[in-house]
Amino acid sequence: MKNRQFNLTEQQLLEEIMLARRDVRGNRFSSDPVDHSIVKKILEAASWAPSVGFSQPWEFVVIKDKHIKQKVVDSFNRVNAEAKNQFSNDKQALYTKLKLEGIQEAPVNIAVFYRPSKLPVLGQSSMLETGRYSVVCAIQNMWLFARAMNIGMGWVSILEPSEVKSILNAPDDSEFIAYLCLGYVKEFLEKPELEQLKWEKRKPIQSSLYFDSY
Amino acid sequence: MKNRQFNLTEQQLLEEIMLARRDVRGNRFSSDPVDHSIVKKILEAASWAPSVGFSQPWEFVVIKDKHIKQKVVDSFNRVNAEAKNQFSNDKQALYTKLKLEGIQEAPVNIAVFYRPSKLPVLGQSSMLETGRYSVVCAIQNMWLFARAMNIGMGWVSILEPSEVKSILNAPDDSEFIAYLCLGYVKEFLEKPELEQLKWEKRKPIQSSLYFDSY
Repeated sequence: MKNRQFNLTEQQLLEEIMLARRDVRGNRFSSDPVDHSIVKKILEAASWAPSVGFSQPWEFVVIKDKHIKQKVVDSFNRVNAEAKNQFSNDKQALYTKLKLEGIQEAPVNIAVFYRPSKLPVLGQSSMLETGRYSVVCAIQNMWLFARAMNIGMGWVSILEPSEVKSILNAPDDSEFIAYLCLGYVKEFLEKPELEQLKWEKRKPIQSSLYFDSY
Repeated sequence: MKNRQFNLTEQQLLEEIMLARRDVRGNRFSSDPVDHSIVKKILEAASWAPSVGFSQPWEFVVIKDKHIKQKVVDSFNRVNAEAKNQFSNDKQALYTKLKLEGIQEAPVNIAVFYRPSKLPVLGQSSMLETGRYSVVCAIQNMWLFARAMNIGMGWVSILEPSEVKSILNAPDDSEFIAYLCLGYVKEFLEKPELEQLKWEKRKPIQSSLYFDSY
């Protein structure tokens, strides 16, 4: 592996995987079971992520139990009922039609937590949030690796962290980062659904780019 | 691209890229210039990341100016002088020997910011931090894509965010997330340096894994 040089064809394949990755919701998951070896591989991909001071501060709860899933759905429904009120008129009408989670439809759910180290971590003294960011790097690895295994993943963020912690009996010092739904899919959309529905436009990278200073 | 099915060889290539990705510091960057087309491609890979409500809340400052870089190095040196005091005895001795940034050595630096939307964002009502997490997903895409182009990247977190914002003239409402150093490398280490030096051990994924509940 040391000093492995990748070629253009290999770069293009990574580009294809990144471009084909989608946030998958309940209306596109198939009920086909996902073998544990697949879940294990996706979690391994998480462990290949960078982490501040090599702290590897991630923890995962793999959830298949329908009753536990239902408690998370109930929490989603409570938060979502309020969330839609942020949007006015046309946007609220479209919001109401959107399927925004796939908790029961996806055969596998994974709740991801950040467990801060009890000892000082190299690189984390002035930017504590880099611990959480390490966990997010792991999540992006999972998302890409799942896609390369033709598994869809969706990130559900319309949840109240304290409720998810309570449902999963999480220790006080673990912090809820993400709730992921995984499964085979009926289809991967060609574009992000929110782009397709014109909820938001894609921003050209130039509009977010500065040189040497803002 | 729609419904593209990837095969085992393609999954294995992604695994290879993920496993070959390293956090690169100053002692391993070569001074070979990095063409702007390469930097642009890495920023495009950032834009392929998922973002909450398709908000794409990332901003990038590409830095090549040596004087600006030096101000960031000065900030690093101030924070690092304090950071080493967290570690006692043997660890502090090892810490002092570590090269922990490559700001001047890397031909390209990229400061990454989170610019919160002024309008409500779908999916961000109960978990505000998902805006920052979207930016981190973009950073992990950059890291992997850089590696596939045989470019090393290092994330410098031993910095005071307010100082970096001031150096780069960042607007009040933009939040500093990461300072990245990019360039060709003399070598990619076979293992993370902190693992190789036994600063931290690699954790088996089983030690971070729970089923249905903690």
